Amino acid sequence: MQRRFSFLGPSGTNTEEAARYLFREESDAFLPCRTIPDCMEAAVDGKVTHAVVPWENSLEGSVNLTLDWMIHKVNLPILAEVILPISHQLVSARRPERIDYKEVTKVMSHPQGIAQCHNFLRDYLPHAEIEYTSSTAESARIVSEHPNEPWLGICPMQAVYSYPVDLMEANIEDSSEHNFTCFVVVSNNPLELPESDMHKTTILVTLPSDFPGALHQVLAAFSWRRLNLSRIESRPTKTGLGNYHFVIDIDHKMDDILMPGAFAEMEALGCQIRVLGTYPVYLKAETSK
Amino acid sequence: MQRRFSFLGPSGTNTEEAARYLFREESDAFLPCRTIPDCMEAAVDGKVTHAVVPWENSLEGSVNLTLDWMIHKVNLPILAEVILPISHQLVSARRPERIDYKEVTKVMSHPQGIAQCHNFLRDYLPHAEIEYTSSTAESARIVSEHPNEPWLGICPMQAVYSYPVDLMEANIEDSSEHNFTCFVVVSNNPLELPESDMHKTTILVTLPSDFPGALHQVLAAFSWRRLNLSRIESRPTKTGLGNYHFVIDIDHKMDDILMPGAFAEMEALGCQIRVLGTYPVYLKAETSK
Repeated sequence: MQRRFSFLGPSGTNTEEAARYLFREESDAFLPCRTIPDCMEAAVDGKVTHAVVPWENSLEGSVNLTLDWMIHKVNLPILAEVILPISHQLVSARRPERIDYKEVTKVMSHPQGIAQCHNFLRDYLPHAEIEYTSSTAESARIVSEHPNEPWLGICPMQAVYSYPVDLMEANIEDSSEHNFTCFVVVSNNPLELPESDMHKTTILVTLPSDFPGALHQVLAAFSWRRLNLSRIESRPTKTGLGNYHFVIDIDHKMDDILMPGAFAEMEALGCQIRVLGTYPVYLKAETSK
Repeated sequence: MQRRFSFLGPSGTNTEEAARYLFREESDAFLPCRTIPDCMEAAVDGKVTHAVVPWENSLEGSVNLTLDWMIHKVNLPILAEVILPISHQLVSARRPERIDYKEVTKVMSHPQGIAQCHNFLRDYLPHAEIEYTSSTAESARIVSEHPNEPWLGICPMQAVYSYPVDLMEANIEDSSEHNFTCFVVVSNNPLELPESDMHKTTILVTLPSDFPGALHQVLAAFSWRRLNLSRIESRPTKTGLGNYHFVIDIDHKMDDILMPGAFAEMEALGCQIRVLGTYPVYLKAETSK
């Protein structure tokens, strides 16, 4: 079967970069979608074989939307995670001569992109007006469509390839920020992937009732087996206030002994457990500054 | 001091509804801001006395942005939480006669607003095109500005008051959804509020190092004191992958014995603790359907 991938658009997002880092297919194998639910529905409807969506610490879309959609709306297991370093590129429309910073009237990006380049903007572009866009990639699109305006955008490297823009300065993010962003590939279709030495299993735990210490007992099942948890997040169950699921990332792949033992122990406590995926993790190396 | 409140705009958002539910000042006391960071910066800069921002399960803006900004950028304690039921209103531009559903060509709202009204849209407006807007309130603004187009918006009740629109159907959300959304008031200025019988304390816990079971030990400090936790969420520390803070909501106000005892025990384990706020919670009654 020919593989095809939906990703959270527009073209040039970090989500597209994550998809293209993991999958080396031709350009027409990647389908930009306007929202996270649209990405996942495309995989459910068979328009694509796999969906790539933001998973953690995202500049694009609400990660809560990804989680809630996976919990309540679609049944698509996680097949892989991609971790990218966040870096920001300063771009102008393509022009014969490089624009002088003094002439720039406006800098555009997503609010978090602007915030993460605070020092650069203060030092080189303090006079420029700031305009917020719905994604960092969107700023490159807008800048490229107004070649006669003295505007700059702050966008991912992927957007430099996707739009007719000139790269003015690479990696302008504040150096104090060691920032990463994570994406997951979800689908009911199998996926052939390279070997990885990092694996995770993500589970959804529903506690039997809201009694003090329930979560503590759940975590004990992992703790005494020395299974490390790298994330834990409570999400409302939608059955009313005060009822919570917990989404837990375990730093291990599914095995025959420890994980089933922990799950059996939690079920004996009255918990419901749903495995959202057991999958390899791929970490893209940080760009040098 | 005259009170003034920033909120995540545009006018008519659930965030504005939360602000006006808690504070009964005149309209000019409420300042819409374009982003969550802008809301909080307005409180830091003294443009307003208090900021109202999304806190959980939001249709507006990224709740992670609220948390990250509070953890890394501003030092504004949480002074109150407001919980609203989520309900969706179907609106048209003001017109002399009610528009027939058959004539409607487009329905606009935020992707989650559209998703939460799935049954109504399937039953009454299956022929209409769906267009996504950046917030549910934004759909009311766009509809009101195009009175000659056969378009409808799905928006909060607050937007029905904020824009020149006609309410066509009230509370069209799928009845299976018992959905709530939460907001917090943050500021360094004191705040006089009515009594409440619900209180929470929110803390940020930084674990000493990434060792298996660390979180389990932290939770034990609460568990044996029978202090109930209603939320726990891991957030990256930004010092590198695999390092996490935990944001924990405790269903108690700060006291003289139990809470300081739990904190001292966690600090003895090597954890750093920062109290993000200890505050009353206000729950608006659900609208009848």
